[in-house]
Amino acid sequence: VENDPSATREIIAALYPHTGGGHVLGITGAPGSGKSTLVAALAAEYRRRGLSVGIVAVDPSSPYSGGAIMGDRIRMRELAGDEGVFIRSMASRGSLGGLARATADTVRVLDACGYRRILVETVGTGQAEIDIARTAHTTLVVHMPGAGDEIQTLKAGIIEIADIHVVNKADLAGADRATAALRALRDLADEPMDSSEALWCPPVLRAVATTGEGVPETVDAIEDHVAYWGLNDRARERERARAAAELEGVLRNELLRLAMEGISPERWRTTIEDVVARRIAPYHAAHELLRTFLNAQD
Amino acid sequence: VENDPSATREIIAALYPHTGGGHVLGITGAPGSGKSTLVAALAAEYRRRGLSVGIVAVDPSSPYSGGAIMGDRIRMRELAGDEGVFIRSMASRGSLGGLARATADTVRVLDACGYRRILVETVGTGQAEIDIARTAHTTLVVHMPGAGDEIQTLKAGIIEIADIHVVNKADLAGADRATAALRALRDLADEPMDSSEALWCPPVLRAVATTGEGVPETVDAIEDHVAYWGLNDRARERERARAAAELEGVLRNELLRLAMEGISPERWRTTIEDVVARRIAPYHAAHELLRTFLNAQD
Repeated sequence: VENDPSATREIIAALYPHTGGGHVLGITGAPGSGKSTLVAALAAEYRRRGLSVGIVAVDPSSPYSGGAIMGDRIRMRELAGDEGVFIRSMASRGSLGGLARATADTVRVLDACGYRRILVETVGTGQAEIDIARTAHTTLVVHMPGAGDEIQTLKAGIIEIADIHVVNKADLAGADRATAALRALRDLADEPMDSSEALWCPPVLRAVATTGEGVPETVDAIEDHVAYWGLNDRARERERARAAAELEGVLRNELLRLAMEGISPERWRTTIEDVVARRIAPYHAAHELLRTFLNAQD
Repeated sequence: VENDPSATREIIAALYPHTGGGHVLGITGAPGSGKSTLVAALAAEYRRRGLSVGIVAVDPSSPYSGGAIMGDRIRMRELAGDEGVFIRSMASRGSLGGLARATADTVRVLDACGYRRILVETVGTGQAEIDIARTAHTTLVVHMPGAGDEIQTLKAGIIEIADIHVVNKADLAGADRATAALRALRDLADEPMDSSEALWCPPVLRAVATTGEGVPETVDAIEDHVAYWGLNDRARERERARAAAELEGVLRNELLRLAMEGISPERWRTTIEDVVARRIAPYHAAHELLRTFLNAQD
């Protein structure tokens, strides 16, 4: 899947009927929040509970990645000898758009292989991270105590994708304030109770991943969400939205590829020169190319 | 342009011949680096130098609820009374992909209106930010002192789009280390001197935006880059790459729109159900839709 993109379509098609058994957990948060350490601690806790774990690290700074400079690799090595754990780093696999796609496919492979919990670690707050979060059943956002962080988080739209908040490094000053601020923001973002269906209220937990404090409680909260996911129609609705987004993405890329094949290099070059010289606006230039492509389909 | 997307094409086509006079400056960096404050300080310095300034603030809105801004732009309000400054916030204007497009169009309107320096502020390090940076003539990346931040920046691909680095909050501990690390990374990323043409070496500056320290020097560096941009073929090459990326983006979106128009809601719904039930893989399902669309063009 990673090495031969042209074979990916057939591989995933063959594996696809075997997927759906694994629960995909997205773990995201700002750089420095201690995501990697928390991921390792969660994996160890899951192993204690007898569940197999796949880890996909999309965070370029994650200690899982071969060339990474930072991070405590010791914790990872403890997991690496365990057959019930599979670790894969996606850190340097091309463009961010391609990364989201490759990550989704890798998660499918691990799912089809029977890993019961698949932890996908991403960094930051960009579109690729949000795309990756969309492919998760449960999204865990890792925070750390610090002035203004909770506001930045809200601005980046992360608060709305969180199913579970964890204030990591909860032994540092400001943990109480961060926890209280997150609870207040969560309550603001909460939807009104307009249905008889019980809604999920994202818990705000505290942890110190380096010591393991709060880790069993975090796994408990994840498992609550696993149960919630299996119970109601909202989960199904989310799966549908996920499928629709993926279909659109594939259509968009395939159509562009077909269109570009139908445009001669010479035509492409002169069009660009016309745009740069401001002889024609990009919209109109693209539309002329589009018309050529669609006429060629007749 | 913002309110009537259907009219945008004609508006931009009419304005397009009048664009090209403004210099577009992209300002990006991690959350908390003090970008907004620096943007306000740069705008004030430009006003002191007699140049008109357009400011476009891009805050990615939530892909789920449309989002709200919590940002305090108090400092911006000081500028708002000045006729030589035009401020526009792009928050909550649809998807991130749509945001990049709407931002590019808004920049064009300001350009056609005669604003000499157009500052586009984006948050974070995602693909949309990189797309927006691509539409800028000069990209300024704002850093702050802090463990590992410079490494995160490198990995996120931001270092390659930076024309100027500013270590903001340079009065904080770690500023020397961050500056030295950025200079080392910049030198690593530098292309070999294989042509007689003088290459731009991105300066690493220090500033304290809240006090104005380092702000005139930052504007000097920007103006050096404005001069560089006017001098050589690389700039032209960059304009071509920019035009190509925009043409591709328009093609991609128009083709998807056409394809979606050609697919019945019923067909779309059953396809999604088939994918969710794992009767067909997303790739293959999208391809079947694609075939239907292309056959309909015959």
